[in-house]
Amino acid sequence: MYYLGVDLGGTNIKVALVDENAQILAEDSRPTNLPRTAQAVCDDIAALCRGLQEHSGGKAVAGIGVGCPGTVDDATGQVLYSNNLGWQNFAMGPYLAEKTGLPVRLANDANAAALGEALAGCAKNAESAVILTLGTGVGGGVVLGGKLLTGYTGAAAEPGHMVIRDGGALCTCGRQGCLEAYASATALIRATRAAMAAHPESAMHALAATGGVTGRTAFDGAAAGDAAATAVVTAYTHDLALGVANLINIFFPQVVGLSGGVANQGENLLVPLRKEVASMVFGHEFATKQTEIVCCTLGYRAGVIGAALLARA
Amino acid sequence: MYYLGVDLGGTNIKVALVDENAQILAEDSRPTNLPRTAQAVCDDIAALCRGLQEHSGGKAVAGIGVGCPGTVDDATGQVLYSNNLGWQNFAMGPYLAEKTGLPVRLANDANAAALGEALAGCAKNAESAVILTLGTGVGGGVVLGGKLLTGYTGAAAEPGHMVIRDGGALCTCGRQGCLEAYASATALIRATRAAMAAHPESAMHALAATGGVTGRTAFDGAAAGDAAATAVVTAYTHDLALGVANLINIFFPQVVGLSGGVANQGENLLVPLRKEVASMVFGHEFATKQTEIVCCTLGYRAGVIGAALLARA
Repeated sequence: MYYLGVDLGGTNIKVALVDENAQILAEDSRPTNLPRTAQAVCDDIAALCRGLQEHSGGKAVAGIGVGCPGTVDDATGQVLYSNNLGWQNFAMGPYLAEKTGLPVRLANDANAAALGEALAGCAKNAESAVILTLGTGVGGGVVLGGKLLTGYTGAAAEPGHMVIRDGGALCTCGRQGCLEAYASATALIRATRAAMAAHPESAMHALAATGGVTGRTAFDGAAAGDAAATAVVTAYTHDLALGVANLINIFFPQVVGLSGGVANQGENLLVPLRKEVASMVFGHEFATKQTEIVCCTLGYRAGVIGAALLARA
Repeated sequence: MYYLGVDLGGTNIKVALVDENAQILAEDSRPTNLPRTAQAVCDDIAALCRGLQEHSGGKAVAGIGVGCPGTVDDATGQVLYSNNLGWQNFAMGPYLAEKTGLPVRLANDANAAALGEALAGCAKNAESAVILTLGTGVGGGVVLGGKLLTGYTGAAAEPGHMVIRDGGALCTCGRQGCLEAYASATALIRATRAAMAAHPESAMHALAATGGVTGRTAFDGAAAGDAAATAVVTAYTHDLALGVANLINIFFPQVVGLSGGVANQGENLLVPLRKEVASMVFGHEFATKQTEIVCCTLGYRAGVIGAALLARA
């Protein structure tokens, strides 16, 4: 049996035809071209799906899964609110089901990507996983026993909006001290800029001379032995460790997977992170098993694969 | 069908015979009498269970559930580590099953109590619940779709050991800034004593003259209009709100239930708490459903009822 996975973003619509083993058989995409009506966007999704069905070699396509930015209600197929798309209370599931003749499942886009990593990526075969995306914000998803945690309201999980430092840095959500305000790529870049301003002698100025300040600047500076860059990386790693350890102390999952730009640092980030998290885990002295902290493996394809697996469930 | 629920504590062993609707038919208890061998304690549990089986009126008893302090592995029946009992790697499940001829299920004691409240108490019929116990520490349990969240390691959940104020008050676990270091009854009493020392004019001195300082002192003082007491209660409520809101932003559960001594304040605590939490919930502006914050209803019986329901599952 095959499945269609849709990753609907503010910029692009990506669709993949996926088999029951989470392998991609064919992919396609189109620009989302916002602002447009929700119906027009869904008509494009339906067209992309029809196009990929031609690659199914006659094998049945069982359903469509859609990862959509914002809050969705999978039970009713409603997109309750999507700031990125400008949608509110749109019955995407029923609309798309009518256009394609296939059953449609919905998830938040970060949740769909987390499901992809949990079932087919960095946490494949694990009984539970918490996926954190370190990008513009800190997104994520929790997969327990193969199922997404969506909560009573459908809004779960928002691990980026866990306060780790009450009264601390202002978060995009309006509160102070959220994990997102410290562990996002945005926060890392902000801290890098601040350190550069305070340290005209820092090697980071030369590193950022071409290409500007990015989430890599401080890591590259630290690797070159720059003191100001090392301080930025140390503080960033500590704050990320707080968030990861808090989530471990709540879920004690088999795997914590990190994705997003900052996670491209790989073992550079993971080695000091694992060390710091280890001492923060409750009962670590007596633990016979430990949560594994890894980087995600599917890249941007996590979204379409996870969406397709949503349809498989 | 009937079930036996055991709440094994450092001071007392409590056992109840419970029907399939979570109603208690008979109860009994004995002192735990520590220090004793694990086998001697289990022999007493078995004797209590046999005694209660006589109240079953011939109706079959399907199994025993045990809530035990520490870390347990329900799959193997092992108590991995219990500081309170002084046990390590004791095969409690197999031992008790042999003594009683009944299948035995194990859970951490806070998890068993959370299961009781979730299925038969404050969150009865709710699809998900997070239970927080505000006592000597901050314990708790998470129940999703009727099932306890125990995690990959069996140690979930420890919501009290989520850092809300990095570098803050020292926690019993050795870290700084855990929710437990601010929201436990112990922390409330510590803050009350500090406020009394700083404010010789406070009405709290007269309130504590008989019976000493308790978790009620600051609440009683605040109700009487005392400024220092009000400040203690306001700070306590804020910190508890941070913890509750963090958990809502992760689980978005249908119910958050509070138990333990401080929860006896009831609406006195809940009204300002709900108000503060509301503004901290991610996406609250667009939420169509809200997590309900309530007090637990089963009291000490949550432990035996939850343990029995563990055996029912």
